[in-house]
Amino acid sequence: MRAAVLEEYGKPLKIVDIDRPRAEGSSVVIKVSGCGICHSDIHLWRGEFSSILPADLPIVPGHEASGVVVDVGDNVPPDIYPGLKVLVYWSYCEQDDRYSEVGMYQHCSMKAPAGFLLYNGCYAEYMLVPHYRYLVPAEGLEDLSSAAILSCAGATAYNAVKRAVSHGVGEDEYIAIVGLGGLGVLAFQLARRLTGSRIVGVDVRREAVEKALEVLEPFEGDSIVDASRSDPRRSILEATGGKDVKVVLDFVGSRGSIETYMDLLAPRGLYVIVGLGSAYGPSIPVHHMVIRELTISSVFYGSIHDLRSVVDLARRKVINYRGFTTKITLDRVNEAIENLHRGRVVGRQVIEF
Amino acid sequence: MRAAVLEEYGKPLKIVDIDRPRAEGSSVVIKVSGCGICHSDIHLWRGEFSSILPADLPIVPGHEASGVVVDVGDNVPPDIYPGLKVLVYWSYCEQDDRYSEVGMYQHCSMKAPAGFLLYNGCYAEYMLVPHYRYLVPAEGLEDLSSAAILSCAGATAYNAVKRAVSHGVGEDEYIAIVGLGGLGVLAFQLARRLTGSRIVGVDVRREAVEKALEVLEPFEGDSIVDASRSDPRRSILEATGGKDVKVVLDFVGSRGSIETYMDLLAPRGLYVIVGLGSAYGPSIPVHHMVIRELTISSVFYGSIHDLRSVVDLARRKVINYRGFTTKITLDRVNEAIENLHRGRVVGRQVIEF
Amino acid sequence: MRAAVLEEYGKPLKIVDIDRPRAEGSSVVIKVSGCGICHSDIHLWRGEFSSILPADLPIVPGHEASGVVVDVGDNVPPDIYPGLKVLVYWSYCEQDDRYSEVGMYQHCSMKAPAGFLLYNGCYAEYMLVPHYRYLVPAEGLEDLSSAAILSCAGATAYNAVKRAVSHGVGEDEYIAIVGLGGLGVLAFQLARRLTGSRIVGVDVRREAVEKALEVLEPFEGDSIVDASRSDPRRSILEATGGKDVKVVLDFVGSRGSIETYMDLLAPRGLYVIVGLGSAYGPSIPVHHMVIRELTISSVFYGSIHDLRSVVDLARRKVINYRGFTTKITLDRVNEAIENLHRGRVVGRQVIEF
Amino acid sequence: MRAAVLEEYGKPLKIVDIDRPRAEGSSVVIKVSGCGICHSDIHLWRGEFSSILPADLPIVPGHEASGVVVDVGDNVPPDIYPGLKVLVYWSYCEQDDRYSEVGMYQHCSMKAPAGFLLYNGCYAEYMLVPHYRYLVPAEGLEDLSSAAILSCAGATAYNAVKRAVSHGVGEDEYIAIVGLGGLGVLAFQLARRLTGSRIVGVDVRREAVEKALEVLEPFEGDSIVDASRSDPRRSILEATGGKDVKVVLDFVGSRGSIETYMDLLAPRGLYVIVGLGSAYGPSIPVHHMVIRELTISSVFYGSIHDLRSVVDLARRKVINYRGFTTKITLDRVNEAIENLHRGRVVGRQVIEF
Repeated sequence: MRAAVLEEYGKPLKIVDIDRPRAEGSSVVIKVSGCGICHSDIHLWRGEFSSILPADLPIVPGHEASGVVVDVGDNVPPDIYPGLKVLVYWSYCEQDDRYSEVGMYQHCSMKAPAGFLLYNGCYAEYMLVPHYRYLVPAEGLEDLSSAAILSCAGATAYNAVKRAVSHGVGEDEYIAIVGLGGLGVLAFQLARRLTGSRIVGVDVRREAVEKALEVLEPFEGDSIVDASRSDPRRSILEATGGKDVKVVLDFVGSRGSIETYMDLLAPRGLYVIVGLGSAYGPSIPVHHMVIRELTISSVFYGSIHDLRSVVDLARRKVINYRGFTTKITLDRVNEAIENLHRGRVVGRQVIEF
Repeated sequence: MRAAVLEEYGKPLKIVDIDRPRAEGSSVVIKVSGCGICHSDIHLWRGEFSSILPADLPIVPGHEASGVVVDVGDNVPPDIYPGLKVLVYWSYCEQDDRYSEVGMYQHCSMKAPAGFLLYNGCYAEYMLVPHYRYLVPAEGLEDLSSAAILSCAGATAYNAVKRAVSHGVGEDEYIAIVGLGGLGVLAFQLARRLTGSRIVGVDVRREAVEKALEVLEPFEGDSIVDASRSDPRRSILEATGGKDVKVVLDFVGSRGSIETYMDLLAPRGLYVIVGLGSAYGPSIPVHHMVIRELTISSVFYGSIHDLRSVVDLARRKVINYRGFTTKITLDRVNEAIENLHRGRVVGRQVIEF
Repeated sequence: MRAAVLEEYGKPLKIVDIDRPRAEGSSVVIKVSGCGICHSDIHLWRGEFSSILPADLPIVPGHEASGVVVDVGDNVPPDIYPGLKVLVYWSYCEQDDRYSEVGMYQHCSMKAPAGFLLYNGCYAEYMLVPHYRYLVPAEGLEDLSSAAILSCAGATAYNAVKRAVSHGVGEDEYIAIVGLGGLGVLAFQLARRLTGSRIVGVDVRREAVEKALEVLEPFEGDSIVDASRSDPRRSILEATGGKDVKVVLDFVGSRGSIETYMDLLAPRGLYVIVGLGSAYGPSIPVHHMVIRELTISSVFYGSIHDLRSVVDLARRKVINYRGFTTKITLDRVNEAIENLHRGRVVGRQVIEF
Repeated sequence: MRAAVLEEYGKPLKIVDIDRPRAEGSSVVIKVSGCGICHSDIHLWRGEFSSILPADLPIVPGHEASGVVVDVGDNVPPDIYPGLKVLVYWSYCEQDDRYSEVGMYQHCSMKAPAGFLLYNGCYAEYMLVPHYRYLVPAEGLEDLSSAAILSCAGATAYNAVKRAVSHGVGEDEYIAIVGLGGLGVLAFQLARRLTGSRIVGVDVRREAVEKALEVLEPFEGDSIVDASRSDPRRSILEATGGKDVKVVLDFVGSRGSIETYMDLLAPRGLYVIVGLGSAYGPSIPVHHMVIRELTISSVFYGSIHDLRSVVDLARRKVINYRGFTTKITLDRVNEAIENLHRGRVVGRQVIEF
């Protein structure tokens, strides 16, 4: 089968023929339909995760996958069968513990995430999933290859929005969505369904704002802020009528974004870092935080329950995931990585097979 | 009446005679019984709060007060009467808003905290409380002057422990209490009543550890760690048998303490900053936080409901507040401030009148 | 001023001229714009509340009011001024306690609800509100007299839906809304904004179903069930594809409705009684409940925060409140009461002044 | 091996020799140390569960088991080995679903509870546990046969107390524990560790009250009420100083107990039915419930996480489980059942092997 292989950090992936995997025991092989190119793939490619997720090169990257089951092991139950359309929960867990027991495989102490460690990912025609429990049925989704973005971006955005919900945010309070890329636009839509609050999306990239305005149709009370030419903080305060913000969901997660938007928080406000824009942000402002009882939290992917939830919302068309993808072929994967790295991508690129 | 007055930042307080305040409208005057000397008073005295709480000097400091009602205004209802023993909720709110409406006066947008801003505090024989709603009946408390520490340290420790509870922490998980001063020892006791978790207290000051060991009598599974001579992190891991910590309540709140203890956190762990040890902590470790879904939160005093709760627990002797106070006279207030500033105080100093 | 007065239980109200009230102290007089006729008014009128809320007759009924401030007492702050459009939170509290302190005036131990006890209601041209804190600004609402229904039906529906949210209900789980009258249709809309779950509305009255279908436009996954001719339980199961229901919000609250819909509950399901259709429901099915860990809860009006929240959502047109009201004049109030009592009303009748 | 077998409902169990089970695959055989005799066993024996849990007779009853692993199947991992002391989570699940996925096997749609359905229970020297995931290590528990009561009574009491915690109950509010049998005394102790509230235990059986007084040593603010000769409601109100109760945990669950104690509830109070004393309770008091926003909920056993939590607390001696058991031999099981059925048992009877 054709696959794109990372042999050396920072070097172009090699597009080669490798053996197609086979299912045995509880594992399953899918024929990949769509494989999203996620910012984390850039971090992997550049070797920036080598300390936290030390991959054994060579590896086939790609963790945001949709596909069709083609081969199942002996222990796979009959509701997972060849021909079934599925999304893949990518953060596999090699030994069960208190996190995996409640479906939070992403915090398992023996992680083996697809496309990062031990298991090849979806930059390939076929993909081995080591246990059927990582598959989420995707029947009823209109565009299976685009739906790949739900399996990472979707679940992560859902997890982030749920964090806002459980923090408590009122109807006349604001949730700011920082960064209107693939995750941000999904989060914008989810926040509008799962909370009664006012949503303000912001991006410093004009094209991202334009794309978002085209697809999101904000309700009254919600807004999309173009911060490409003006001070982002001031632009947001104009949108809120000068009111502070109760929750910031930061899909950029850089030193700059945290410095910029933390100041907007109301007393008892919540700042959720989702993006991995910088390894380190600004210094923790102890006095400022304490006096206001601020919270800085973070979201890493989501549980398998989160993935199922977002798939269900997509199936019912509560969220639009199709308007934000650009489909490419496997041959153009290096170009796509380069474009994402250079900040030239609006929405999400998906390799379609 | 005799009062200690702050006229200039960093200079000794002047002990002088000033006019005794009078109650009118909804206000109440109490004869002070005890007035705790809190770390925040040091920050005030050194002018370190001048940007966040710009006091109009001269002012009588002191916000941690117990006393007896002596004079009530015309609008004060009959359940607040001369002779009533009370604690004072010190973070007054000058204009009601969504925070004051639920008893979180400490987040009111027009704050006027006793002893910091607008209103004189309890470093004086009498104290004006601007509204009777800030009084919490203290009948049944055995030692009214020592009980003053409940009105700030107690409510704050309660608020911090409740944060651990609402975060979710299991029976076989650990809560670390960093800093065994006045707040830490109260938090240790509260955590042992309000959670089923294992508690580890730690201090780098040998005398603080000895005092804590004397009074706290840890249950099986709980421990007090002396980090005066060994690596604090290693000492805690010895106490937990190598297990990570789910919640850290940091009553020091310095750059050093945050750097030291943040690393102990389990996935989805919570770090609560309570102490104001440094204005800025270390840089936010974005990648580390996100991969583990860590949360850094903070606690600022508590609501009036928190104060009532901790008073109720003290009344029923669920917590011991008496074993951690040292009583002094008003004349020795400058010495007491100096000692606290130099880190020579174990437990809490209380001015007794 | 003109007012409808209840002099004797079960007898027609008398439409008479009475003195217009005057504001003093913290009280406010409003010129009534709209006054909703609520099912509770029927209970009052028939004397069915005489044990739980013993009114002193004569009284002017009516508690669901919108209007314009015309007269303010001396202690009323400047943000409440003549000309301001407002909704009235009707469950006044005569002595503050732990419920009123957090805005849950409806559970205050010394209740004096407008139009039921002590204070006249809005079946009159003017209405005295005993404290300005019960007013919620209504600027920006398009139809002030129709908006009256938010002040009781709206806040109650919001409180009910929030109960579902805090119970926890998943994306692929169902919330059933029983009874598509004024509250049910508001709840249907709120559930669709505040949860990601699938909503099934049901009514046994064909006209109510038709009205709901006309205005609610269910999304995919949501449905409106006409149970006028078929078994309601079976109809709901058809709508859910045979799946049980996680939460029932029962706006009828009769013995019959509870018997019918309780059986649909999934393990750990929640049944929320909102309607007061019968004084007593069926026997508590202890074994059935325990084995499934079912919960039967109830909702009574809402807090003042709930009222503000629903007003905010209406202002932003997240919910449609206008399509469900029928406006009448004060002269026809007895006819309106009779129609409501006979079950001949779809939506909500509002007296417009 | 020796076993007590239920061949016919209502008839004495037969004590016979049957084949000792063998482990294979993921199953495990334990040598039973202790087997508690639970009220549910009486319901089973009398055929009262035949509609909700239709057992295939003959069956070996008994679901509250502790023991030592003696035989493991091929798929059992090395941390479950012969010689390991364990408690058994008894509500086995034959097909995973959304409940089992989060450890709530007790709500699995294909239940097969030990000693009730499909699998023999612990009224026998050896017991087959169908999957190692149902075992909770019991190392460190001082008295393994008495500790059997943790595996049903303990987990259930923990689940009930957690319900009170998550409902929200303040320091100056009361939790009433109705019924001071095996579960009630465990719940009393757990409530005192997991909440800051005041606890009132009540029983109408004088011996139960005496036993409880002997072992529980109530703190100030807590109390044990003897309702054997006086009106239970009045006795509780004397203990609370006339204050209503925020949460009732009813371990009797009969029509009589529910009628008696429901009236004590404060607004927004919670009544948790745990005992299965009657199949049906009193009629649901719709008007009374709604006006006060009361909740009637129920608890059925607990999740495997609940079981682990209570075991951990017992290991650390936070709760005393040993003082409430009476040990008997298998020969006397029919006598023990008879005594329990006649209400002649205080605490919990445990068959010791």
